[in-house]
Order: sequence, then structure tokens, then C-alpha cells
Amino acid sequence: MKGIVLVSGGIDSLVTAAIADKECDELYFLHLNYGQKTETREMRAFRQLTKHYQPKDVLVVDVSYLKQIGGSSLVDDNLEIKDFDDSEGVPNSYVPFRNGHLVTIATSWAEVLGAERIYIGAVEEDSSGYPDCRESFYIALEKAINAGTKDETNIKICTPIIHKRKSETIKIGMELGAPLELSWSCYRNNEVACGKCDSCVLRINSFKEAKIRDPIDYEIKIDWDF
Amino acid sequence: MKGIVLVSGGIDSLVTAAIADKECDELYFLHLNYGQKTETREMRAFRQLTKHYQPKDVLVVDVSYLKQIGGSSLVDDNLEIKDFDDSEGVPNSYVPFRNGHLVTIATSWAEVLGAERIYIGAVEEDSSGYPDCRESFYIALEKAINAGTKDETNIKICTPIIHKRKSETIKIGMELGAPLELSWSCYRNNEVACGKCDSCVLRINSFKEAKIRDPIDYEIKIDWDF
Repeated sequence: MKGIVLVSGGIDSLVTAAIADKECDELYFLHLNYGQKTETREMRAFRQLTKHYQPKDVLVVDVSYLKQIGGSSLVDDNLEIKDFDDSEGVPNSYVPFRNGHLVTIATSWAEVLGAERIYIGAVEEDSSGYPDCRESFYIALEKAINAGTKDETNIKICTPIIHKRKSETIKIGMELGAPLELSWSCYRNNEVACGKCDSCVLRINSFKEAKIRDPIDYEIKIDWDF
Repeated sequence: MKGIVLVSGGIDSLVTAAIADKECDELYFLHLNYGQKTETREMRAFRQLTKHYQPKDVLVVDVSYLKQIGGSSLVDDNLEIKDFDDSEGVPNSYVPFRNGHLVTIATSWAEVLGAERIYIGAVEEDSSGYPDCRESFYIALEKAINAGTKDETNIKICTPIIHKRKSETIKIGMELGAPLELSWSCYRNNEVACGKCDSCVLRINSFKEAKIRDPIDYEIKIDWDF
């Protein structure tokens, strides 16, 4: 079975790739550059993960129109990437319907390759509150995809960690031998992770909860005593 | 009400724009370049239609990754754009899941603009047999989009000509004063339409059925006696 994995280079997509690697005979990695502020660093993580997992083919797609469209602090230079706050609502880092684009591009590629599975490391609970990370979205999207592709195309959208806490995902990654030290999560920096943005704080807290020391370095001192 | 119209520059999207122009207070036009062989000519038609309808804003998006992904004679230089034949099955001009990309990009833009409607001139009957032109697809996709965007985002996908024969669409366009002479349909040529590809043959036959003479020129002689 052929499986396409959406690999951003973060922990969730890495562990999803590790799961897909167990379940599929042939892996294909898809990465999107969309003018996000840490594009170069994510691309480096993607290349290192590609070296590690040796997928049959990779596709790197430029969707910089997401920057043209704007609406998110991750792509809009006029919007600041805020420090973590735990208030309700969709944070300003939300890139409107970004995961819709990821899966749509994967669908076209799947139809050409004859791949039956698309893996995406979306997380509904314990996540940033993005609407395109909800399980109900992927269930509805899978139906739409199978209605809008050839009759002989049958695509399953796999979201193996959608109900996991990030600390569980980290543990699964450790069990599967996923190279967590190669992953990148920081929204803000390209060299040393800031330790303060939404994504860094969630990562650090999850490693602490899993009682595992994060193998990457941070700009600020992190207390790793459990 | 704000409406985004997907305007390729062909007759179907032009007549859809004419309908949207009646129904919406504010129009927005979206055009995609995806490395199709007639990209320049379609872009010219798009610019002319923009001059005519004066939408509040336009977005032209480069999705040349569809050429990277391939699988269609419209984008792949190794696949020939065939002359029309009326055999069953999906023709080789089908760009895998292309309309999924169109609507997905429109969705991100709609979420940023606060637009409530996305218009697409897809046609199920009397069309080329593309799976991403079926009404069932748009119904399912609308559900997926509303599951995957913010709670305050409510998007309706409007497919006003999906059950029309192209000859009816042409008549509706005439009634609404749509500038049919500015539209472009040929898959093959950039200056004078070939008159022989799938798209030209469908256009010519539909004008004949509507008993209207097509205002554009063709490379071959067309018998316009009704």
C-alpha cells in the first residue's frame, strides 16, 4: 500500500510519519512552503527526516499564495507572533484553511500515484484550537475527496494522533524510534527555538508531561527537573 | 453580500460571473495559473472580464505544482491534447482534483474577506466527464469547508449552471449581457481557437444548438447555418 505523509517537520508530523512507515509498503513525503517565517528551518527538518525515512519520492510544493491571502501571523509581517496565552478562541497564528490545502494537494498527487492513504498529523485536543484540526473536518473532507475524484480512486485520510495528547505522541515517537531531535516546532526562530511562542510552550510542556527531556536547545533556560 | 467567483476565462465561468454579479453586492474574482498550455490566453480573457465586471478585488494564484504533479494532457508536455472523441470515461485532459484546489484557495480568501459565497461554473451534464464537476462533490465539499473553518465562517458553494446544457448557459449569458466574445475555451491554441479539441467542439456544438453564432474565430471553417 502506498501512503503519502504530510511532513511539516514538527513532532506531530514526524510521529505520524513513523506510524505510516509501519503501516505502508511505500512512503511518499509531501512538504509545503507557504512563506511562513520559519520556512527555511522547517525545510531543513524535512530534508533530514527524508534522509532518515527514505521515502520512495518527495514533493515540495510552493503555496506562497497563502502569504498573498494573509490573515495569519505566521505569514503576515504586519501581525506579531504572540507569546503563548491560554485564552479561548482561534489564535492569530491560524492560517485560514491551511490543512485543507495540504490534503487537497496530497489528493492530486495520490490520484496520480495510485496512493490509497494520506497521513496528516492533525491534533484536535491539546492543540492550538485551529478549526482545520478537528476530526469532523477530516471525516467530511474524505467524503468530498471520494466524491470529487475518479471512481477507481479511493483515498483514506489517516489522522492517527488526532485524539492524542502531545505527551502521548512524544512517547509513541520514542517507542517507534522517531528521530525527535530532528524535528522543529518554533514559529518564530530559524536557529535556536524561542521557547516562548505557542508552539514552543506546548512542546516543552508536553515533553515535561511525558517526563522526557526535549533533545533540542532553547534560547531561554528550561527547567527539566521532573 | 460578498461573493468570490472562480473565473477561468471560459464561457461557463463567465456566465457564472454574470449570475453572481446579479446576486452579490461585492464581487471578487479569483484566477488560477497552473502551467496549462493556454495559460497566457486564459489570463488575457480573465483581465478583459475583470475590466468588464470591475470586481472589488482580484486574486491571481500560481498553482504550478499541478504541473509538477502532472497526470493531465493540459499540463504535461508528454501527453497530447487529443481531438474530441465521444467515448466513455474520464478524458486525459482531466487535471486530478483541480476544482478541489480552486475551491480550497477560494475558501482561504473567503475566510479572510468575510465572503459568504463561492461561485464556480462547474457543469455535471453535457460536460467532459470530469469527476470534480459533479454536484455531489460540491455538496460534500461545502460540508467539509464549514467543518474546517472558524465557527463564524459560513460559506455557500454556488454552482448555478451545474445542471445546464452549455447551449442554455450561452442563452443565459446572452440574456444577462455577458461579453461572450471575450471568453476563451480552446485547450490547445493561444491566438486562434483550434476548433477540434474537446473544449472547442463542445463550445461550437453548443452555440449551434442555441442557434447563436459564436463571436470568436476558429482556425478551421465552421458551418454556422442553423
